Amino acid sequence: MQKYKKNSDYSYALGTELTLQLLTDHPDRVRSVYIHSRQLDNEICRRIEALAQRHRIEVIRSDRIFNILSDKENCWILAIFDKYQADIDPVANHVVLVNPANTGNLGTIIRTSIGFGIRDIAIISPGVDIFDPRTIRASMGAFFQLRFQYFDSFADYLAKADSRPVFPFMLDGARQLDEISIPDHFSLVFGNEARGLDPIYQTYGQSVLIRHYPVIDSLNLCNAVSIALYEFTKGKIK
Amino acid sequence: MQKYKKNSDYSYALGTELTLQLLTDHPDRVRSVYIHSRQLDNEICRRIEALAQRHRIEVIRSDRIFNILSDKENCWILAIFDKYQADIDPVANHVVLVNPANTGNLGTIIRTSIGFGIRDIAIISPGVDIFDPRTIRASMGAFFQLRFQYFDSFADYLAKADSRPVFPFMLDGARQLDEISIPDHFSLVFGNEARGLDPIYQTYGQSVLIRHYPVIDSLNLCNAVSIALYEFTKGKIK
Repeated sequence: MQKYKKNSDYSYALGTELTLQLLTDHPDRVRSVYIHSRQLDNEICRRIEALAQRHRIEVIRSDRIFNILSDKENCWILAIFDKYQADIDPVANHVVLVNPANTGNLGTIIRTSIGFGIRDIAIISPGVDIFDPRTIRASMGAFFQLRFQYFDSFADYLAKADSRPVFPFMLDGARQLDEISIPDHFSLVFGNEARGLDPIYQTYGQSVLIRHYPVIDSLNLCNAVSIALYEFTKGKIK
Repeated sequence: MQKYKKNSDYSYALGTELTLQLLTDHPDRVRSVYIHSRQLDNEICRRIEALAQRHRIEVIRSDRIFNILSDKENCWILAIFDKYQADIDPVANHVVLVNPANTGNLGTIIRTSIGFGIRDIAIISPGVDIFDPRTIRASMGAFFQLRFQYFDSFADYLAKADSRPVFPFMLDGARQLDEISIPDHFSLVFGNEARGLDPIYQTYGQSVLIRHYPVIDSLNLCNAVSIALYEFTKGKIK
């Protein structure tokens, strides 16, 4: 085993919480679970071992594989799992990320999106690798609840999604977020962290601006997505 | 010069944009500007040199100081500046962070807060060092517009602030964010990234919940602050 690479057919769930979530949501995808000698024999560890046993997943006690981790990571349990396909549901509401570049941002967006009940994220390529262990870790396990799909172009995405209003979030959005009427069915579209959306996205739907003072260039991408998700799901979460 | 330490009486603005912002907002605080040999002689570099000259700040062409940076940082201009005091305005609206632990989060919160017109952040100790270069960098220069102050306790903070409604954001908040009536004058209070606010904060004002599905434990702190700032300043930003 070695450091994660984008073209690997497996990825890693790093840490007890992630490993537990993976074993709960996708036990059929897990190749093996590794436990470091420094891991305490605590309740969560025993739950992981019990789940692995139930699904006949090998549990390996070895410290060596943990060398794949960066120094910063405080992680004594990990799972290796096969990458899987979990295509977006064409009739669900979607978050669409155009060329997202940051693994941590993507993970945080996944967590918030799942929290607000949006289970489907479309990514317009090129975009960061959603199976990167850093993305999965930043999602804090929400990744395993997510449906996701990469598309070569926004047109390809539109061909997959059913008919719905599309809301590209742009610094020169035609209407302010707090002034639009919110439909039940929607796609929320966000650009790259540094560049935002290309002007062509003005033509793809009702462009939306989250107004802020010009003393900052733009909102952080995660924060913009969070604010949009909050406004679009307000009053609908029970 | 050496790596930044919390007890240093100076800090670093790392990168061209930050250095330019610092020279614009607080030229009197700048000790010196360093330019690496790899820095191109471009427009922003010439603006920095002109500003430094106008304020009689020494510009040093040397690569050595850049060794203080981590490998990851792509930075060819930096400025060293004296830490300064910029106490919060008692009559302004405030964001209050109780025991914030993450430098990057704090920087992003500063950026979003400034973007939504809240220029004052109170920190209840212990909390991360606001002068950490990572905080300043994550704020993307918004730091230099900020007033900030550390307090030993929430009671000390309340003694400084004028009378206003206080809104502690809590997972068991008594009312949902989209159901409260928003006053013009307020303090928004948020807990530590991992632990949130202690239950005692229920007694400090109108506790607020940002509702999400229980499939995630909580929203990311930055995202929660962003959503709250958006809702509290909605329609007021011109």
